[in-house]
This record gives sequence, C-alpha cells and structure tokens, in this order.
Amino acid sequence: MQLGTVIGNVWATRKEENLTGLKFLFVQPERPNGDTTKEPYIAVDRIGAGVGDRVMVTNGSAATNMMPEANLPIDALIIGIIDSVDIEGGGKHEESIRND
Amino acid sequence: MQLGTVIGNVWATRKEENLTGLKFLFVQPERPNGDTTKEPYIAVDRIGAGVGDRVMVTNGSAATNMMPEANLPIDALIIGIIDSVDIEGGGKHEESIRND
Amino acid sequence: MQLGTVIGNVWATRKEENLTGLKFLFVQPERPNGDTTKEPYIAVDRIGAGVGDRVMVTNGSAATNMMPEANLPIDALIIGIIDSVDIEGGGKHEESIRND
Amino acid sequence: MQLGTVIGNVWATRKEENLTGLKFLFVQPERPNGDTTKEPYIAVDRIGAGVGDRVMVTNGSAATNMMPEANLPIDALIIGIIDSVDIEGGGKHEESIRND
Amino acid sequence: MQLGTVIGNVWATRKEENLTGLKFLFVQPERPNGDTTKEPYIAVDRIGAGVGDRVMVTNGSAATNMMPEANLPIDALIIGIIDSVDIEGGGKHEESIRND
Repeated sequence: MQLGTVIGNVWATRKEENLTGLKFLFVQPERPNGDTTKEPYIAVDRIGAGVGDRVMVTNGSAATNMMPEANLPIDALIIGIIDSVDIEGGGKHEESIRND
Repeated sequence: MQLGTVIGNVWATRKEENLTGLKFLFVQPERPNGDTTKEPYIAVDRIGAGVGDRVMVTNGSAATNMMPEANLPIDALIIGIIDSVDIEGGGKHEESIRND
Repeated sequence: MQLGTVIGNVWATRKEENLTGLKFLFVQPERPNGDTTKEPYIAVDRIGAGVGDRVMVTNGSAATNMMPEANLPIDALIIGIIDSVDIEGGGKHEESIRND
Repeated sequence: MQLGTVIGNVWATRKEENLTGLKFLFVQPERPNGDTTKEPYIAVDRIGAGVGDRVMVTNGSAATNMMPEANLPIDALIIGIIDSVDIEGGGKHEESIRND
Repeated sequence: MQLGTVIGNVWATRKEENLTGLKFLFVQPERPNGDTTKEPYIAVDRIGAGVGDRVMVTNGSAATNMMPEANLPIDALIIGIIDSVDIEGGGKHEESIRND
C-alpha cells in the first residue's frame, strides 16, 4: 500500500455505471517523512477521509474488493486513515509521525 | 485513477475477439494543474468522452469490470468526465479547475 | 493500452504448461509520433501481427482474458493492429499517422 | 517478488472492513547487495516479520490470495523472511548475503 | 512478458502458506541485446531454469495462473527458457541472440 495525503476532491457527473455516489479524492503519495514522491492520483474513499488526512491506499484491481460483487472499475481505494508511522533502524529512516 | 485529457483517436480493424465496436481514445495523463506527466496511452470509452475532455481513467485489470462477463482483454477505461477538481492545502497544490 | 511496433520474435521450447503453440513477439512501446519510450517487452499475438506492424497491447492480468478458461500465465497481449492514429488539440500532439 | 527490509510500523484505527487485526509494515525495497532502490511502501505481514528483517514481498492483487474468500483490498504481502540470497555469474552481482 | 537472465537463488524458510517447495530465483531484466535495464526481482520457477539461463517472465497476478486453484500469493513466474531472440527492422534493434 502507498502512504499519502489527501489534497483535494474530484467531481464527475458523467461516470461509468455503478460509480454513482462514490467519493473521489486526490492523494499525493509521500515518504514516511512527508516528502512527496510520485504524481498525485485519484482514489475512492468510503471511510470518511478528507483533505489533509494522511492515508494508506491500495492500488490496482484489489481496490475492487471493497465491493467484490459490484465489479467496480476502480483502481485505487483509501483503506486506512493513518494514526502513526514509526520508522526505525539504520539511521536512514528514523522518525515517528503522528496524524493529529 | 489517473487524471488526463483525451488527445486523439485510434482505429484498428484487426482486433482481438470481443473488442468490435469499442471506442479507443488516446489519453494524456496530467497533474491537477494541467501539466502533462507520463506518456499518453489508449483507453476504452463508453460514456461519450471526446477530444479535449478532461477524464478520469482506471488502469489495469479492473478496467475489464465494465463488462465482467465478457472477459475483455483491456487495461484502461475512461470512468468519468471531470466536472471540476479542487486542490487545497499546504500551498503546494492550491487550485480549482473547471471543465467547461 | 500501449501503442508500439513489433520488432522481433522470441522462441522458447521449454515453457510453462498451456503456452505451447502461442506466438511471442517483441514490442517496442512508442508515442503516437513514433518516438520510442520504454523498454521493449514480449507480448502474445494471435491476430496475425508481424515485424513492423504498429499494434495496441494490453498489459497485466487482463491479457489472460484471451482465453479465460485456460488460465494462461501471460501479462501482455496484442489486441489490435493499428489502422491509424489521429492526435488533435493544443498543438502538443497534432499528427495523423496511417499504418499502410 | 521484491526484496526489501522491514523499516517500520504503521497504525490506522479507521480502516476498510475486513482489515481489522492485520499487521501493516513499512518495507524498503533493495538490491541483493543491500542498496536501497524504490520508495518504501506498506505491506501486510502474517508470518511474523519485524523491523530489520529481510523479506520477500508480493505486490499487486495476488497479495489478496492470502485469504481469497475474504476479498481483502490489499496490494502488498510479505510472503517470506529471507534466509539467504546467492548471486552468481558475470561478475555483476557476485555476492552471498545471510540474514542472521 | 519481460526478458531477463537468472542471476541467483533466494532461500526463505519462513514463508506464507502454500509456498513450501517452490523455487525462487533472482532475475535481472534486460534488453534483447543483453543490456540490463530495471532492478532484479524474484520469480518462481518450475520449468527447471538455473543461473545463467535467459528467461521470459510473467509479472503481476497472472503469475498465479500456474496453479489457479492454489491461490498462490506470487507476482512473478518464469514461463519460458529462451532459445533465441530475433530483432529486425529500423536498424535500432537488429540482432539475433541464441541461448546455447
């Protein structure tokens, strides 16, 4: 899963079937220390994430497992809102970040 | 999902079975602010997107969920035509773009 | 799907079960204007593509949909031989290429 | 599968259904010689890996095979704790690393 | 599928269920002319590939098709040992390599 921060919203009235009512959020991928990495992308959220939240995102067809019987054509799902990340060892990534 | 703009059409008479009648469009991936990012690729569309439209694309095997029973060998599907994108927070991505 | 040109053949006598008789071709990914982009890779073909043909390739597990019941362990399938690509708009990609 | 080292933990109280009780670890991908490569990401672990362990990770929807009937929306799973890696041939990668 | 050369072995005693007895090999991806490209990764082999063999690898969840009923959490499978690669056309990739 990828760590990231929700940075915005996306609205689309004309959509594929089955997608009506889903919430689409822009997520900026980042390192544990908060540095941004890859390009932002759009993920579905149904656990109540909002702009500024640090989240954990599942990419690829496993995202459709949120509703297996619905066969949703989606490829990214916010699966958790991060409480904290603890990075240890080797001096390369020592840090502890809380999402208050 | 990836944000992008439809930039062209692709025609192919000789195709894999099941793909007859599908519309194939070239999509240029881009950032919320409109900067292009990765290489353009080809996506299936059945919601009426056209050249110049800003769209949301699902990549990977989840794209086949548009017709699960048909087992289509496709890996990209336009799932929405963007009305607007609102990016907030941190000053890094503040913008609001409408697709009129 | 990815645009590319068939650049060669691959032969492998010792193969995974179920793959006997399949044709494996090397494909060079490219932009609509013909510039090469990523590294070439190997794709299965059963629509009669040959060296020099411009093709459209499906990557990932959706490629296995060519024979869903066969559970083929393949990750790239040539799904179309390109007739033409028309790129419009913005001046960035204006071109029209025919595959004669 | 990707080689990497576990570098930290992630906690998220608010999560997608079905994910309660799973352990989420940060993994830093690396080369056989220990050089780090891509960005770290989050993987599920249920074989008892901990910070400092060298592991083998499956990415993509195959990670959901840990519990196929549960339809977990996860995209990375630690599938093994490395005992040793032996790289031979060509002088490019000769080394033998043990995980004691 | 990706072209590569087997460069080593990986041993892991503690593993996910179902993976006992599988052979894990390190594969270095390469171009048809033998230049290395991306980072090496670990692939399952059951067709008898060994260090120094040139192979063809399927990535992603299609790798699990080697034993669909087993639901293996693997994401790379060696599907063929290369006999020869013939690259033609355009002068960019003219070569013919045999794996003796």
